[in-house]
Amino acid sequence: MFFRIIPRNLRAGFLLHPNSYHVTAEELFNQISLKHTYLCVGLDTDIRKIPPHLHQEPDPIFAFNKQIIDATADYCVAYKLNTAFYEAMGPKGWESLQKTAEYIPEHFFTIADAKRGDIGNTSGLYARAFFEQMPFDAVTVAPYMGADSVTPFLDCAGKWVILLALTSNTGSGDFQKLTLQPDSVETGIGDGTPQKEYLFERVISTSAGWADTDRMMYVVGATRADQLAGIRRMIPDHFLLVPGVGAQGGDLEAVSRAGMNSRCGLLVNLSRAIIYASGGTDFGRQARSEAQKVQAHMERLLGEYFA
Amino acid sequence: MFFRIIPRNLRAGFLLHPNSYHVTAEELFNQISLKHTYLCVGLDTDIRKIPPHLHQEPDPIFAFNKQIIDATADYCVAYKLNTAFYEAMGPKGWESLQKTAEYIPEHFFTIADAKRGDIGNTSGLYARAFFEQMPFDAVTVAPYMGADSVTPFLDCAGKWVILLALTSNTGSGDFQKLTLQPDSVETGIGDGTPQKEYLFERVISTSAGWADTDRMMYVVGATRADQLAGIRRMIPDHFLLVPGVGAQGGDLEAVSRAGMNSRCGLLVNLSRAIIYASGGTDFGRQARSEAQKVQAHMERLLGEYFA
Repeated sequence: MFFRIIPRNLRAGFLLHPNSYHVTAEELFNQISLKHTYLCVGLDTDIRKIPPHLHQEPDPIFAFNKQIIDATADYCVAYKLNTAFYEAMGPKGWESLQKTAEYIPEHFFTIADAKRGDIGNTSGLYARAFFEQMPFDAVTVAPYMGADSVTPFLDCAGKWVILLALTSNTGSGDFQKLTLQPDSVETGIGDGTPQKEYLFERVISTSAGWADTDRMMYVVGATRADQLAGIRRMIPDHFLLVPGVGAQGGDLEAVSRAGMNSRCGLLVNLSRAIIYASGGTDFGRQARSEAQKVQAHMERLLGEYFA
Repeated sequence: MFFRIIPRNLRAGFLLHPNSYHVTAEELFNQISLKHTYLCVGLDTDIRKIPPHLHQEPDPIFAFNKQIIDATADYCVAYKLNTAFYEAMGPKGWESLQKTAEYIPEHFFTIADAKRGDIGNTSGLYARAFFEQMPFDAVTVAPYMGADSVTPFLDCAGKWVILLALTSNTGSGDFQKLTLQPDSVETGIGDGTPQKEYLFERVISTSAGWADTDRMMYVVGATRADQLAGIRRMIPDHFLLVPGVGAQGGDLEAVSRAGMNSRCGLLVNLSRAIIYASGGTDFGRQARSEAQKVQAHMERLLGEYFA
């Protein structure tokens, strides 16, 4: 299939920089429509969990990722690489990260799940790491340091920020769900009663002004579909990246019903359930089979919405 | 001088893992008392800013850092490496980071200024990256994802978390200084009137329960000494890491008067003013001279407090 044969580092021969192609929101929705899937495969590749026979390879992590990408490419539109898994391997892990990012074919939306964020010029260096040294389309960013920690990532033409809004872990209750004082709440409901506003809602409403829907997405955990629905009402047009389906307990059907919009608007990430479907030499085949099951489910859910 | 001759990777011969030595709060204060300084030198080493003659070296970034460390070791107690500068160089940048961390002598407190934070098992992998693959004493962590994103770093015996509380950039106003609804404020002043509470204050009061003062510090920007004084009242015994003196406009004297406690309790980070004091072959000598000036100033300020 076309998607599987042109890695990013070979694209366009010698004429174009490998980062000159950008996946736009339009292109992402086209891929979703064409392939009937909004699956993002999480390449959270842990050296302690990959099949033992791969340890003979010069780069076991990359060998694993390569086979997973080949096996699942027909059934997903995006790949997300959580940088922690690569950094834990030291400098050679960073090489595996780079090689994997370069191997993923260009029509796929690629996410460095790095949760970075620093003062302006320093965030600019992280942008260089993921958008220039490596050909990622998007980086996840933590919002705590505010606008000037996020906007340097948007200075790279065509690249995306995926801002943490509401995460799927239990610790999301510690700060993200604190309620703000009405004084600092900008909007109220009709009768003048100030509306309850959570920190994560303020993060969304403030940051939505930093970029248009073609450059900014939000991370919204799958563990509470009702909150996902509330966020969808706040930002009807943004793509949402939803982790936490499967291993973390989120439900694909509930998430999709709560979060879909007129151009799907969702990327649902699954990692362990797909990449570790088998611990043996058939891991690629089993990953493909799991990805296909998820794709078939997503095709039904897309059919309901777009019928 | 003793501090300059035993890099971490050579310490204790072949018997001890290079990470088996930990800088405790007690040890840190001893170093401050002995050397009359609470300077942390920020190795924010940018390939575009180092003296041109170093570009002939096989690893220009490490060559620069090595000379800066040798030049400044008499006048500081800590080194902070902001990971963005190293990641922007790709896999070889990560090698420079590792080599630098291993080169710093063991009595220095070493900080990976990485601003990480992810769901539990993933934060655990970041901890492995900085505390096992590399011999850092501390990692800076962003608080947005809550307790289970921070505590995995504390599972590494003797290692420190330095949590972002109030940063020195303009974007710190976007979320860190939002006021929380009184309902969610735990404490009030005597007359029952609920006290105004900022998000950064809640981050501190909540997280202070996650570890003792021997394992947790806070990042507090130097740009507002009055807020630093308020934070010192909240947490009288914690060390505070203060960036933003010098290039970002903070004032060493105001910061020290507002933030010092009975065991100093401060690490003040300077980077550009020291490491780029000269752009020529004398960069080491000039860095030493700048570091010495700061140390002399700190010695006076320590003398006032501990007189």
